[in-house]
Amino acid sequence: MYVMVIYDISDDKIRTKVAERLKDYGLKRIQYSAFFGKLNQNRREELMFRLNDYIILTNGSIIMIPICEKDRSQIIKLENIDYEFDEVEEA
Amino acid sequence: MYVMVIYDISDDKIRTKVAERLKDYGLKRIQYSAFFGKLNQNRREELMFRLNDYIILTNGSIIMIPICEKDRSQIIKLENIDYEFDEVEEA
Repeated sequence: MYVMVIYDISDDKIRTKVAERLKDYGLKRIQYSAFFGKLNQNRREELMFRLNDYIILTNGSIIMIPICEKDRSQIIKLENIDYEFDEVEEA
Repeated sequence: MYVMVIYDISDDKIRTKVAERLKDYGLKRIQYSAFFGKLNQNRREELMFRLNDYIILTNGSIIMIPICEKDRSQIIKLENIDYEFDEVEEA
């Protein structure tokens, strides 16, 4: 199943660590504070368990949204960017 | 159906206008650059059509993700915040 993880984290160091953990789990960055990718239920729970260790150290919010295939196929993107982020795999 | 809209927009004025449009459509802010709420298909398309007028003026990305009831019920939130954002309606 696909997941999207979005976060608001005020501390720069912790924000960087959260991004690194998300990459460790194979998620791809699709916006500055948004990652997307495939994770099974165990990995989702394990990842959030780990991220909790960071969120207790700072002011912030991390939200993980599971995205079923049907929803993923209806994602709408408007982009006017000149930097390279990973792609949200189109349908 | 629920939707989440996330955005990265470099221009402050345009970012503010995008947030205002999202509120106009009844979406609630759940993070600094993330909104959540219920929108039917027509309203979703109409909203993105309007947001396109902004994104062509600046460097940025706006992504709208439809979220079915099952996925919404499995949203996981980790929060350590002292500011008030609207709630992602819990299951």
